[in-house]
Formats: sequence, structure tokens, C-alpha cells
Amino acid sequence: MIEMPSVRPFMERLHEAVHAKGAPVVVGLDPRPEWFPKDVFDDGGPAAAGAEEAERLRVARAIVRFNELILDAVRDVAVAVKPQLAFYERWGWAGIRALEETMKLAKARGLLVIADGKRNDIGSTAAAYAETYLGTPSAAGEWVSSGLEADALTVNPYLGTDGLQPFVAACARNGKGIFVLLRTSNASGAELQSLPTGVESVEAVGAGHEKPTTVADRVADMIITLNDGLPRADGYGPVGAVVGATHPEEARRLRQRLPGVMMLVPGYGAQGAGARDALAAVDGDGKGALINSARGILYAWRKERPGEAGTGADYAAAARRAVLAMRSELRGVLP
Amino acid sequence: MIEMPSVRPFMERLHEAVHAKGAPVVVGLDPRPEWFPKDVFDDGGPAAAGAEEAERLRVARAIVRFNELILDAVRDVAVAVKPQLAFYERWGWAGIRALEETMKLAKARGLLVIADGKRNDIGSTAAAYAETYLGTPSAAGEWVSSGLEADALTVNPYLGTDGLQPFVAACARNGKGIFVLLRTSNASGAELQSLPTGVESVEAVGAGHEKPTTVADRVADMIITLNDGLPRADGYGPVGAVVGATHPEEARRLRQRLPGVMMLVPGYGAQGAGARDALAAVDGDGKGALINSARGILYAWRKERPGEAGTGADYAAAARRAVLAMRSELRGVLP
Repeated sequence: MIEMPSVRPFMERLHEAVHAKGAPVVVGLDPRPEWFPKDVFDDGGPAAAGAEEAERLRVARAIVRFNELILDAVRDVAVAVKPQLAFYERWGWAGIRALEETMKLAKARGLLVIADGKRNDIGSTAAAYAETYLGTPSAAGEWVSSGLEADALTVNPYLGTDGLQPFVAACARNGKGIFVLLRTSNASGAELQSLPTGVESVEAVGAGHEKPTTVADRVADMIITLNDGLPRADGYGPVGAVVGATHPEEARRLRQRLPGVMMLVPGYGAQGAGARDALAAVDGDGKGALINSARGILYAWRKERPGEAGTGADYAAAARRAVLAMRSELRGVLP
Repeated sequence: MIEMPSVRPFMERLHEAVHAKGAPVVVGLDPRPEWFPKDVFDDGGPAAAGAEEAERLRVARAIVRFNELILDAVRDVAVAVKPQLAFYERWGWAGIRALEETMKLAKARGLLVIADGKRNDIGSTAAAYAETYLGTPSAAGEWVSSGLEADALTVNPYLGTDGLQPFVAACARNGKGIFVLLRTSNASGAELQSLPTGVESVEAVGAGHEKPTTVADRVADMIITLNDGLPRADGYGPVGAVVGATHPEEARRLRQRLPGVMMLVPGYGAQGAGARDALAAVDGDGKGALINSARGILYAWRKERPGEAGTGADYAAAARRAVLAMRSELRGVLP
């Protein structure tokens, strides 16, 4: 039995945000302290902590300050932010506290939060991840949040359906979303994802689908099945897919194969893909794709003025210029 | 060029530990506070923190106390501990701090630490995960640890070779290990992992390998390739595999296919597999497999005395009995 969500479904909130902001722009919050302006750092941590812990705390404070500048610069034009969890874990518990604070700041600014953790495991472990990032496992009783509750989470499909079920249950219950890794933008992504599986898929849907089916096609079937019976908004279910912008041909093919599946498209800008490639995954109404850029926005100042030290205000202004440019490029291509 | 490790390779340290402890026993540290004895909890957190944060901190302190009891009970018989990261993330930054403290306590007791995070991503993001859990990216210069440095990490192969390379580089440089998800113990594990890929693998090695190859076979090839040229100990390289104990037939086949690849075998005890199944992955010398049990050890008291509240000391004593029984079962089957 599918529990009804206690809040509005993620896809409903997402479509509303895309409409309000004018383009499906997602800002990747990938903190790279080595690229930060100097003025977001303070002069050091409490003397009581060990030297390494004090430095981690100092970096974590800089991350929150930097993210807050970026959030203020993009709040009226971005739909969502996507913190990449690796860059927070890198600073241990202090980094995770910075992630919690970043999520709070983003929510307070009306931005949706997609936690990019590519989490995966089975059974009760997957359930623990789902609770951590997607909220309470049941409607009743006392429950203590992790402080890291997001609107959506990226997940990895290698463990199959029962590794994804706890996340899907959280989507249904709490009005959340997940994005399942389908076809990634890296050079080696094809090694497993494009392997021909040698059998025609029984779940294949949509036009334009040719044999042989690949591993990614089987993941696509899994996504279709997981969305079955869940609440939809404008036809889109809570189980989405991650599809790299560097594979526009494949994105078009997967769009045909996956009607009603929202695609999160990383790789815009820094990874070399432009607006037209990134939007290969949109449907005829211009819906169905979220486009993420991280480095191209956060560190735009470093590209605008190579070698020139800037302030946090400079970085924020450059980030705003970059996100406005991205938005207008996307709007120029949207149907 | 492969950098030489600054410390002794993980596999060397691991073999030494297995020899010293008499069996390849790994204790999974999967904290489930709802199953803890009452006396590991204190009466509450600092009043200054919010109610939820105070509760997370209280749980995190209980986790450290519980883990310390277990570590003291198993230190002379277990080779390694395997904290499952999901159960620490569940409590936000307080949980990650508990993980850091747990790792310190384990290392201080001479236990190896395998961080079970099943992490995965590409390029600079994978590098950030590698730095977080496997240490410094270069020999020179200042570097601040995450506080979460383990001896080994579990990783997911869905993104292909370049998603694993940063982890492999860290293994070579810092004397660490990784375990790549190959064949998992869950019911849906076969959905992708056992798909026939329809082509014979060019990298296939070892006897007993039959067509058609599966996705897991291709991951096996990837593991073989990644181990190429890395330092070995008793023939075993730093890139290992996760193979579920619930698939002994497949473990035997993969053992043939993957000489020199250490297998981390979860699923002993609680997931239903016994010593003979778990040890399907050992080689002719009794090497090549690490057997993990979590619930069957940590919460053995609850199985010994159902419904009876125990103290931390009761739990620790039951854990010791369980790990001794597991060790002697494994030794009874080892060649």
C-alpha cells in the first residue's frame, strides 16, 4: 500500500519552481576551499581543538559563508541547489555540519535541495540512508531528523530494485524525489552502462527503442516500474534519472523511452556541454529536465579574471552573471 | 606512474592480522540505537542545543559507548571492524563525529577499519571521497585529514573505471584497500549484476569461466585490470570485491575468475549464510576472504535472551561469545 504524502509532492513543487524562475537551472554547491576568496575565511578555530580539527572547522565556516553568498546571488533565478556530499564529507563532521547549515540557508531562501550523494545499499541500510536524506519512515510516533533532510537525493542502481525501494517509499510518504544514476557523463560511464544485455527488455516502453538493450535500458525499465502508481505532477513521477549532458543522442533516446521521468542533467558548462546538448532530455513542452552547473557558476570569477584575487562579493556577482547567462541560454533553446 | 606507499600495504597488514587472530572475522559496526541496552545512554544533551540536535548528540554518545564495549569484547579475535556509514549519517554531523571517534577507538585497539560507504562518483568528486576515507592525495605539502581515514573503503562500480581510479591511486599511495561491489547478497542483486552481456570478455582470466559473461563478470575484469602493477601481499592486490555469502556457487566461480582478489563477504549469520557458504570465496590456502557479521554479534544478547533487557556488559559478553563461535565455525571449515 502506498502512503499518501504529508507534504506536496516534490515534482509538483519542482514544476512550480521552474515556472516561477523561468528555466530549470540547478546550482551545484561543490565547495572547493582552494578556490574560495580569502575573505570568507576567518583567522582560525578555537585553540582547544586539535590543529587538524581546528582547521576543518575553519574550512567548514568558510564553506557556509561562501555558500550563503552564492545562495543570495542565485535565489531568484535558480530552482534548486545540489550540494555534492563528497565535498562536505571531505571535512569530516565539521563538513557535515556545514552541509546541514547550507541546507537550512537554501530552504530559507525558497530553493529546493537535491542532495547529491549517489547513495546505495540494501534493506535496512538503504532505509537508514532514506531516513537520513528523505525523512521520517512513518507517519506516526516520535522521530528524530538527521538534520540533513533534502527534497531529493541521487542514488545508484547497481544493487537492483530492493536497494531502491526504501528511497521510493520515502518519496511516496514524504513528498520527496530521487534521481537514479542512469547514464553518467564521464568517459568510462559506458563501460557498464552501455553493455548490451543481449535480451530484449520486457518492460520496454515508448517509441524509438532499438535492440540491443543495454544495462542503462534495464535501469530505465526499473525506474518506470518504481514510478508505477506513485503520485505524478504534469505526468512526472518522483523517481527521476541522472543523465549526463555529454550524451545528447542518448538523452534523446532515453527521453523517448522514459516519458514521465524527470532527468537531472549534470555537465553543463565546466564539463563541456552547452544548452542544446543539456536540453536533449526535455519533452515537447520543454519539461522533463533539470540542468545543473557547479564550477561554471561558483567559480565564474576565476574564469572572468584569471589570476586575480577577488572578494566574496566579486564571486557572488560573477556567479549571478553566470547563472543569468545560463538561464538565458537555456530559454533560447527551450521549445 | 604508481607512487609507492608511505605505509605498509593494506593486504600485508590484513594477512598479518588474519594470521594473528586465527580467522578472517570482520565485525560490522552497524549501530541501531533502538536495540541498544539502556545504560549506554546518558540523560540528555546540553540544553542550549535544539531538542532534535540534543537528541542526535545523545544518540551519538550512546553509539560511541556501545561501540567501545563491542571493540573491547572483540579486539583480540576480530581482524577488522566495518562501520556501515549509513547508520552514522543517520544522526547527521553528530553521527559522523561518533564515526570518527569509533574509528579512533578501533585503531587504538589494533583493529583494521573498513569504511562501508559504497561511495561512487566521477573525477574530482571521487577524488574527494578518496581523500576523505583513504588519505592524502600526494606525498608532499600540507594536508588536512577528514578525521575519517580508514584502512579500506567499499565502492560502487556503476560509473566505470574512471570512477574507481582516484580510489585505486589512494590505495597505491597510502597503503589502503578498496572493495568493489561485485555480487551483492540481496534478492534483487541479480537484476543488473547477473544480466548476460552477450559478449565474451576479452579480459577473462582463470579457469572455470563459461559464457555468457554477466555484468558482474565485467566488473570482475575491471577489478583485475585495476590491480595490475599494484603491490601485492601473498598474491593479493589492494583492489578487492564484495561478494554476498548468500551466493556460494557464484563466489566459487568468481574465486576462480579472480585470483589475487580479496573478497569481503557480508551476510554471515543474520542474513542466513553459514560458515561453509561464507568461505566459498577462499582459495586453496584458506586465504582470500574476509567474513563480516554485524547484527549476529552486536545484538547477540537479544537473540540469546529475547525480551530480556540487558546491560552494556551483557551485550559485550554476548558479542564475545558470538564472535568466538563464529571464529571456531570458520576455522572448522577453513582448509
